[in-house]
Amino acid sequence: MNNKNLIKPSILPGFMELMPNEQLVFNSMLRTIQESYELFGFVPLDTPIIERAEVLLAKAGSEATKQTYRFKKGDTDQALRFDLTVPLARYVSQHFRDLIFPFRRYQIGKVYRGEKPQKGRFREFYQCDVDIIGKGNLDFVNDAEILAVTYFTFNRLGIGKFCIKLNNRKILSGFIEDLGIKEQVADVMRLIDKLEKVGKEVFIKELKNLNINSDQVEVLTNLLTIHEDASSTIKRLRELKIENNMFKDGVNELEEVVQYIKYLDIPETNWKIDLSVARGLDYYTGTVYETVLVDYPELGAVCSGGRYDNLAEYYTEEKLPGVGISLGLTRLFYQLNELNLIDKHSLTPTKVLLLPLTESLSETFGIATQLRLRSIPTEVYAHQASLTKKLEYSNKLGVEYAGIIGEKELKESSITLKNMKTGEQSNIKQKDLVTFLKTKLG
Amino acid sequence: MNNKNLIKPSILPGFMELMPNEQLVFNSMLRTIQESYELFGFVPLDTPIIERAEVLLAKAGSEATKQTYRFKKGDTDQALRFDLTVPLARYVSQHFRDLIFPFRRYQIGKVYRGEKPQKGRFREFYQCDVDIIGKGNLDFVNDAEILAVTYFTFNRLGIGKFCIKLNNRKILSGFIEDLGIKEQVADVMRLIDKLEKVGKEVFIKELKNLNINSDQVEVLTNLLTIHEDASSTIKRLRELKIENNMFKDGVNELEEVVQYIKYLDIPETNWKIDLSVARGLDYYTGTVYETVLVDYPELGAVCSGGRYDNLAEYYTEEKLPGVGISLGLTRLFYQLNELNLIDKHSLTPTKVLLLPLTESLSETFGIATQLRLRSIPTEVYAHQASLTKKLEYSNKLGVEYAGIIGEKELKESSITLKNMKTGEQSNIKQKDLVTFLKTKLG
Repeated sequence: MNNKNLIKPSILPGFMELMPNEQLVFNSMLRTIQESYELFGFVPLDTPIIERAEVLLAKAGSEATKQTYRFKKGDTDQALRFDLTVPLARYVSQHFRDLIFPFRRYQIGKVYRGEKPQKGRFREFYQCDVDIIGKGNLDFVNDAEILAVTYFTFNRLGIGKFCIKLNNRKILSGFIEDLGIKEQVADVMRLIDKLEKVGKEVFIKELKNLNINSDQVEVLTNLLTIHEDASSTIKRLRELKIENNMFKDGVNELEEVVQYIKYLDIPETNWKIDLSVARGLDYYTGTVYETVLVDYPELGAVCSGGRYDNLAEYYTEEKLPGVGISLGLTRLFYQLNELNLIDKHSLTPTKVLLLPLTESLSETFGIATQLRLRSIPTEVYAHQASLTKKLEYSNKLGVEYAGIIGEKELKESSITLKNMKTGEQSNIKQKDLVTFLKTKLG
Repeated sequence: MNNKNLIKPSILPGFMELMPNEQLVFNSMLRTIQESYELFGFVPLDTPIIERAEVLLAKAGSEATKQTYRFKKGDTDQALRFDLTVPLARYVSQHFRDLIFPFRRYQIGKVYRGEKPQKGRFREFYQCDVDIIGKGNLDFVNDAEILAVTYFTFNRLGIGKFCIKLNNRKILSGFIEDLGIKEQVADVMRLIDKLEKVGKEVFIKELKNLNINSDQVEVLTNLLTIHEDASSTIKRLRELKIENNMFKDGVNELEEVVQYIKYLDIPETNWKIDLSVARGLDYYTGTVYETVLVDYPELGAVCSGGRYDNLAEYYTEEKLPGVGISLGLTRLFYQLNELNLIDKHSLTPTKVLLLPLTESLSETFGIATQLRLRSIPTEVYAHQASLTKKLEYSNKLGVEYAGIIGEKELKESSITLKNMKTGEQSNIKQKDLVTFLKTKLG
């Protein structure tokens, strides 16, 4: 084939593709999330990436519609999913009679948004969602379960200190209504969402620009910046003696959720009430969550969600309230990687690299099979090379052990194991190898 | 919202979507495959589903081009990947300098082909691929490793007796050349591919239609229907004293691969040489494999692959020989499900469902957290209902244990565990619960 016809191998902008050492860490995070979700009995779903455009875009606003990958195949107007919530709504409506409620499902999968590519923003990215959907109604214990599964997930991910901020949007809405500035709820909520970013001073100034009087601004600002433990915060809210029903409902719901969180023994260092968490405008109708990494506040919310009144009104007349969270793993991984927090030393899932130093390879391959049968990831480096070269290669790969099999070892039915981290060498009988490695590898 | 505006929740034809009890089994198969691939030190890749059409279709014939999902987003001609081999070729060419060779990678992901929907054929399906790519050359030990990883995968999948059929296409091509009917290699290969399906008689008849003489037909048919162990088959091939170089190369390669397979102790009940395995026409240039489920021959090859001379000639001038297999899990799962071979009794990953019978829920949620901390998937059934109702629910969900916590248990700090399979009940101190369950759940 003629050189001139070579096609330049590259991917589209806005797509993330990892090198093997990064992919290993990414997959291990993915598996931790999956295992955490399954610990709580969430069932996996795997809906198609392509669906009818009509179905996917039933509810979507013009922004989502513009970003959606949409095309015709034959006569059918199709699109790639832009989140996992719409497919969940479609799935629950479609299979309503065959599901058990409350329906606890998780889904981990890629979604597509044709955003303008920019640093840290991707057009293809993983969402990891858990939701609990009720039939007609849904107990508040589920709001606590969602916070608990978030706690377990970040605890197991081991990416440092984290805090799950908890709020109930009814408190904010009710409070603003009570101030007599109901028409401005949307504007005020938008400001509240920006509070942490812009700071208190700008916040107060912009509130005043909305023609909210100084007294009201002060009451609101005080409310949003309460930093006490959950019980005191709820006490403070009750002491405001606000008679607005939505406000009171919000406080009651929050108190009930907090009670369940305490039953679940979630450490108070990992969650708190933060009345300034607003989570956008439309979707959420009660509890809301935002998870932040305490040492990296600049990352913003790395996992968020909340409660919604009705999941699937576009597909069914059944009322389906739900509560859930979404973790955007692609973006989180990218950010951690930029901060050099991803351990990229290993290039392989292999734990033991066998290095035969003799012509005969039969024993070495036999050992490889024995180790693999006992679930120890093993590889054989069969190519001709010096021991030094072979050890260099083991080091480069980042395996935990190199297993040397030379003439001496063949004669003694033994193997020389070198711990590639410590450099420690031990000569071990082949019959004891599995037990030895099982102990060392944990 | 007005009823008349409801959109019917449905998916596109040709897409597979599972119910939770099926999805649990599907995911467990997926994880088994992944773990088997990692046991052999294959590194995971996760390439984008969308790539430039120019890149994906560099090599594709008109059939693939017709089936490809292709669309414009902005000015860019894009497409969904139709396999995982083309993205591998692109990846290896693009990152050539940063990869370690032989490059052992696996990829498990969805691919897209706009085929006419029909029973058991899907437009979106999972491929589970492993490949080993060499730089310039690639030892035949890798062909044996690929057979070994296939063996481990199907052994662990536990879907019954299986056999990996092994061949080398050079043997067939060389043999046909030697018969002096070189021009008809393609036609004869196509017939060989159909041999098992059409039977020996039709095969012979069609060979004769190609103007191949009776003697030649007899020799070829005898060759293809040798059913002996690997060593005898190779001996029989040598005894033919064929001087064609391609034939001799093929026999030598096959013998070397067989030698390594024996070193790897792969049981002879799970693989054999089958000289009738041809695997299409163009792509494979040496070793070829086909895996069949012995008790369900009607399923055909459920996993196949082989060796190819040059992976990425459309993207790079580097010579990149490789060997690999692909397992089409979506189709395999569909077929096993049709045969009622999928165990669908469990609707949840939950192992223990806690049933509080008192007003106080605090202890029950505390126990749930304790079990979850010890990696035991646990759920609480907190809704008000009778014990009978709660046990019925446990049964329906298919959990292994129901954990009853009533007044008596609260007083004694105990829990009554009911094994939902055997009906056996035991009263256990809460402090011994984790140990008990860890032993029972394995």
